[in-house]
Amino acid sequence: MASALRVLIWNENVHERKNPVVAKIYPKGIHGCIADALKVDNQFHVRTGTLDDPEHGLTEKTLEETDVLLWWGHAAHGEVQEEIVDRVVKRIWEGMGFVALHSSHYSKIFKRLMGTSCSLTWREAGEKERVWVCNPAHPIACGIDRYFEIENTEMYGEPFAIPAPDEIVFMSWYAGGDVFRSGCTWKRGNGRIFYFAPGHEMYSIYFNSSVRLVLRNAVRWAAPDPKKWVDSCPQIPISEACEPLEQKGPRMHKEGEEGFR
Amino acid sequence: MASALRVLIWNENVHERKNPVVAKIYPKGIHGCIADALKVDNQFHVRTGTLDDPEHGLTEKTLEETDVLLWWGHAAHGEVQEEIVDRVVKRIWEGMGFVALHSSHYSKIFKRLMGTSCSLTWREAGEKERVWVCNPAHPIACGIDRYFEIENTEMYGEPFAIPAPDEIVFMSWYAGGDVFRSGCTWKRGNGRIFYFAPGHEMYSIYFNSSVRLVLRNAVRWAAPDPKKWVDSCPQIPISEACEPLEQKGPRMHKEGEEGFR
Amino acid sequence: MASALRVLIWNENVHERKNPVVAKIYPKGIHGCIADALKVDNQFHVRTGTLDDPEHGLTEKTLEETDVLLWWGHAAHGEVQEEIVDRVVKRIWEGMGFVALHSSHYSKIFKRLMGTSCSLTWREAGEKERVWVCNPAHPIACGIDRYFEIENTEMYGEPFAIPAPDEIVFMSWYAGGDVFRSGCTWKRGNGRIFYFAPGHEMYSIYFNSSVRLVLRNAVRWAAPDPKKWVDSCPQIPISEACEPLEQKGPRMHKEGEEGFR
Amino acid sequence: MASALRVLIWNENVHERKNPVVAKIYPKGIHGCIADALKVDNQFHVRTGTLDDPEHGLTEKTLEETDVLLWWGHAAHGEVQEEIVDRVVKRIWEGMGFVALHSSHYSKIFKRLMGTSCSLTWREAGEKERVWVCNPAHPIACGIDRYFEIENTEMYGEPFAIPAPDEIVFMSWYAGGDVFRSGCTWKRGNGRIFYFAPGHEMYSIYFNSSVRLVLRNAVRWAAPDPKKWVDSCPQIPISEACEPLEQKGPRMHKEGEEGFR
Repeated sequence: MASALRVLIWNENVHERKNPVVAKIYPKGIHGCIADALKVDNQFHVRTGTLDDPEHGLTEKTLEETDVLLWWGHAAHGEVQEEIVDRVVKRIWEGMGFVALHSSHYSKIFKRLMGTSCSLTWREAGEKERVWVCNPAHPIACGIDRYFEIENTEMYGEPFAIPAPDEIVFMSWYAGGDVFRSGCTWKRGNGRIFYFAPGHEMYSIYFNSSVRLVLRNAVRWAAPDPKKWVDSCPQIPISEACEPLEQKGPRMHKEGEEGFR
Repeated sequence: MASALRVLIWNENVHERKNPVVAKIYPKGIHGCIADALKVDNQFHVRTGTLDDPEHGLTEKTLEETDVLLWWGHAAHGEVQEEIVDRVVKRIWEGMGFVALHSSHYSKIFKRLMGTSCSLTWREAGEKERVWVCNPAHPIACGIDRYFEIENTEMYGEPFAIPAPDEIVFMSWYAGGDVFRSGCTWKRGNGRIFYFAPGHEMYSIYFNSSVRLVLRNAVRWAAPDPKKWVDSCPQIPISEACEPLEQKGPRMHKEGEEGFR
Repeated sequence: MASALRVLIWNENVHERKNPVVAKIYPKGIHGCIADALKVDNQFHVRTGTLDDPEHGLTEKTLEETDVLLWWGHAAHGEVQEEIVDRVVKRIWEGMGFVALHSSHYSKIFKRLMGTSCSLTWREAGEKERVWVCNPAHPIACGIDRYFEIENTEMYGEPFAIPAPDEIVFMSWYAGGDVFRSGCTWKRGNGRIFYFAPGHEMYSIYFNSSVRLVLRNAVRWAAPDPKKWVDSCPQIPISEACEPLEQKGPRMHKEGEEGFR
Repeated sequence: MASALRVLIWNENVHERKNPVVAKIYPKGIHGCIADALKVDNQFHVRTGTLDDPEHGLTEKTLEETDVLLWWGHAAHGEVQEEIVDRVVKRIWEGMGFVALHSSHYSKIFKRLMGTSCSLTWREAGEKERVWVCNPAHPIACGIDRYFEIENTEMYGEPFAIPAPDEIVFMSWYAGGDVFRSGCTWKRGNGRIFYFAPGHEMYSIYFNSSVRLVLRNAVRWAAPDPKKWVDSCPQIPISEACEPLEQKGPRMHKEGEEGFR
């Protein structure tokens, strides 16, 4: 691939401005911290967007120029406009990669892609999390040994109400006694989707070197195939049928008309 | 199972009232015709609902008392209220079966469950369709031989923009030269979902005995398990952790508080 | 279903005869203990078979009369005859349920069904295992609360080299810090397959009431559909093609001949 | 990727030497014809192997140096040695891509990877096949329009006894009225697997430019990830547990011992 992958890091950027603990941990915002993590080897072309930007920083043009979108949301899921959710989801169907981070399990976009409630259990005790690799040769786990640890984390626990993942890359063990499918992949349309659980705003998790490595791996893994595709239910004219056909019986739609939607 | 499965057949019931061809084929409405098909052996407790009923005939109470919901929509997808879509989808997650018929591939509910565009190609030529059985021992194909035929059908063709089905029960061959995954299953939450392509309103497809057999089979297959479940992201108190835990570091939410959504 | 499910519990029955610790825990053999667990409510017709029985207790007739087969093997995987493996696998394809227990992840049958190495990591320290429910409404988890515990267990840990399961019913947490996908389902042909990790021979795990409940649930879940099917690549005569066809060009096989295999 | 993908084309090479029709179509053997197809753009490093080569041309060293293996077998499935099947399957688990062609649905390797019977129906009438693209943006379909046609083909029809594919790339329509899932993907271990139905030996199918394009696409798609992995059930010493552990109760295996297999 000649040119660098174009990455857009989206963050609602609410806690950083309202909560002094978060502001102190992430002075550049969570998006800024993740941007630093992705800029390490100059492999990616990195941009950021936030809720307050015009069109949430997710214009048609920006999305068109994005290969992989990372998403961090929590307190403001409900403020993301439906129209922009539609736009992002359509771009994912076309092939754009999507990495949903931490509390983004409840983002409008992730829920729309999954078709399930995406509920989980949680506990905010600052306990230890050990993230296990379920497939040591998976590209998203590349460079991680058998596991890595996060000293202080929010527990996200089972049951996690997701459709069966295509692959489980990571599973987490918690000091408090719970477990979680913390790194899962799916495909919707031609978009590759990765959910990664670590990332609670009250701890400095996005400074963890293993977490940062996983994010870089995930971007590469989620990169789109060369060809993109999304369709809108085309009518095939009778005259263009592969085998000779004659109209039989009545019809609802005229030749060339669009269908209902 | 001691008591009969409770089936709700939902139909937008638009074409039957506006288009004389459809009105003539389905004088009782498509829902009425399907209801007759399901009543054959007195195995099911059958009810119907339509768009114009209060709350579209989909009240909390009605859904609570429904084991399997069949859905036929086409011209009025957009008129189904979001609030009621939410309600139906939640009930599916709990375990209610859902059978999406024909043009319901573009219904709000089906699209929400799939997370993809659900686009397909189509042609309204009244051509022949041959529906092949992909797994002769699948309960939905029970009683069908290697295939059955529909003399006049609307072609629905690939590409069909769905997530990979759990199982493909039927695939269709068309005289015009196309193919389609015409009978597919998925699970979302604990709800079993079956999409079945045949059913164009301009032909008398729901009077076809094989189509009717498939619908009865599908209802039995989609019946819920005894226990239902849907969750809303409960916080687990630190004092109830399985292993002894002490609070470490700051926290965003107080003990007992609900999370953001 | 009028008549009771017919269950066959298979055990290699090696440790029980050679190792005094195991002999003491399981005086009736692991198969005898599981048989007692399944006989609780007189819901099942229960039989057992072992390696030393004629044809390992797995004759054509016995398999024909079996709805669900439970399998426990460890030290003698290699002694199970290939011919009988073929026979069992074919019966599973037809629809017989298969419950693979503990070290049976490395049994010939399970490996043949999975198509992967089925490797895992393990540690025999008698540590605590907490088995979490990933879907509270799954029939195999019916009657289990959020989790259950096994005080002394052998650790089975990730990476577990299996194809992506259809559903993960249970995931385990271990005191030593590991995690495992300890209850997984698949379908091969029409046979439902459930792998359940707990069951080390050196501890009295099959006397645990939650483990016993899971086994009863699993038998009900794995029960076959009414119709069974397995095929052997039939040639379809040209004269029986659905559409009129004439032979064109040369052919390898004569009409009516069997294909190579 | 700096260096060219290393492709090994394996062919039993039986029909070409015994049947004059096949010999005339494929004077260089089917493997020779496919090799020519793959050499088009100098993108791949191409080698071939056949049944009669020492170790079937599948030595440890050759496999080690292979990124993607294409397989064509039919009359001699039974002559492929079990030991070499084991070797190839293990290499696939490590990450080597595997493209199973036509009658290789019944090869030992493909059946071992699938865990199902892999049965299908067939008819040798030289009828027309139309291969439809189910996902226009799938890399294996790159450069193919909505479909391509094969004028004379052997019909392979449903039911096709495979586990649910990860993705269906192609589905075929036949003049005789049948349909088939003719291009399917799976993953086993870290090996990407693609089954592609066209390729009957009595017709010149591997000279078809669309078929050749699909083969080149499939090789690129099946290329392994950088890291390879296959495991053999390692015991984790108690002293190396992540959390402090003490041995409790008796044990079957000594510290450091291998498990049974």
